[in-house]
Amino acid sequence: MNLILLFADDFSHEGHALLRDTRRLEHIHKVHRAVLGDVLRVGRVDGLMGVGKIIHIDPQQITLEVSLTEPPPAPSNIHLILGLPRPPMLKRTLQTIAMLGVKQLTLLQSARVEKSYWQSPQLQPHKIAAELLLGLEQGCDTHFPVIHTAKRFRPFVEDQLPQLMRDHDALIAHPYVTTPCPTTTDKPTLLAIGPEGGFIDNEMAIFTEMGFLGVTLGPRIMRVETVVPYLLGRLGG
Amino acid sequence: MNLILLFADDFSHEGHALLRDTRRLEHIHKVHRAVLGDVLRVGRVDGLMGVGKIIHIDPQQITLEVSLTEPPPAPSNIHLILGLPRPPMLKRTLQTIAMLGVKQLTLLQSARVEKSYWQSPQLQPHKIAAELLLGLEQGCDTHFPVIHTAKRFRPFVEDQLPQLMRDHDALIAHPYVTTPCPTTTDKPTLLAIGPEGGFIDNEMAIFTEMGFLGVTLGPRIMRVETVVPYLLGRLGG
Repeated sequence: MNLILLFADDFSHEGHALLRDTRRLEHIHKVHRAVLGDVLRVGRVDGLMGVGKIIHIDPQQITLEVSLTEPPPAPSNIHLILGLPRPPMLKRTLQTIAMLGVKQLTLLQSARVEKSYWQSPQLQPHKIAAELLLGLEQGCDTHFPVIHTAKRFRPFVEDQLPQLMRDHDALIAHPYVTTPCPTTTDKPTLLAIGPEGGFIDNEMAIFTEMGFLGVTLGPRIMRVETVVPYLLGRLGG
Repeated sequence: MNLILLFADDFSHEGHALLRDTRRLEHIHKVHRAVLGDVLRVGRVDGLMGVGKIIHIDPQQITLEVSLTEPPPAPSNIHLILGLPRPPMLKRTLQTIAMLGVKQLTLLQSARVEKSYWQSPQLQPHKIAAELLLGLEQGCDTHFPVIHTAKRFRPFVEDQLPQLMRDHDALIAHPYVTTPCPTTTDKPTLLAIGPEGGFIDNEMAIFTEMGFLGVTLGPRIMRVETVVPYLLGRLGG
């Protein structure tokens, strides 16, 4: 928790936040080992970042005098489209994308996604939000990513993708093409990454027909939780 | 297990491998659901890759007729120098570097590394090898990375680093510099990444004095397990 995120409900009155939840209290007590007068790095959800000075602290509650002055880091310009990963991998991937500043993630059905993954409790909005929160606290950002789910491949591709293609470049990672992945991107970019086992040929053909550029990362096969930071590092967006 | 790695001991006679260990047997039976005559992707440790045709299969053993013809992927030209991560993170990081083709990793003591991490069972050679194996099997490579440990900062920097600096470029990731990280590297490159909390100022000064170029990844604070693939993607080495 490199940043303590404050929600609207945490603000008791103008410029003061009152924390009573176990998770943040424990962290401030045990990890920060904070005492009265200490200054912590804080941010307001969807707002500015700054500092919070501890003006009251006991095991049950902490009051912070909050001063918010800095904008959060610039968002990534990448909209990630990801074959729905298996639940434990989804969990880590949600943290990672929030940590790295991605603000748009579409979780997509694809032939190699097991249908049962869509029933996972990990997809419940409060569970998704909990993982994103961990990522924002780690990476120091206040803006929650927006997570879209596309439970059917064709309707997403036919109804939603054309609209997105209008103002985005579009890349798709694939092991069997030879174009190397570009090293930077200045424009908003759709980046599609297949599920475990990859997109099937037919899906690749549809993406390519829509205007996606297939890019290779070389012969190594990466896990989703590795390929996501690898590609975000590569594209620097 | 995208590649089944075969050790010298697995070869029963010329061109034939006999597998009897639970880990690989279970994987071939349960994940590949392989039957007699199936062809699996295999590689010989430190050697070539190719295919193994199942010529005998039962729950206790599998015999493969092996043909090895392709070289493994080109290695990364990055020698990673990493402040020793906490044990669970070390575990995942070892898998990641093996998956991404890094062949030289130095685990380094630094002021912000808890001394107790050096006592972790995770640092036992057979435990390190087990994680590297998982990474090679995932990424499809046959060459094990070499893991060096530098339990004291100064002797490493004074006695070993000058030698390494002769034929390597040298970069150090640091949040408080402004030079952006380059996007590719053609030359063998030392890449230093601090432990949780980063290198301390004095350590940064020593690295810089030695000729390391400090590079920033922007304002976000990444976990070791995220920053490693992020930087390897960025440098494409």
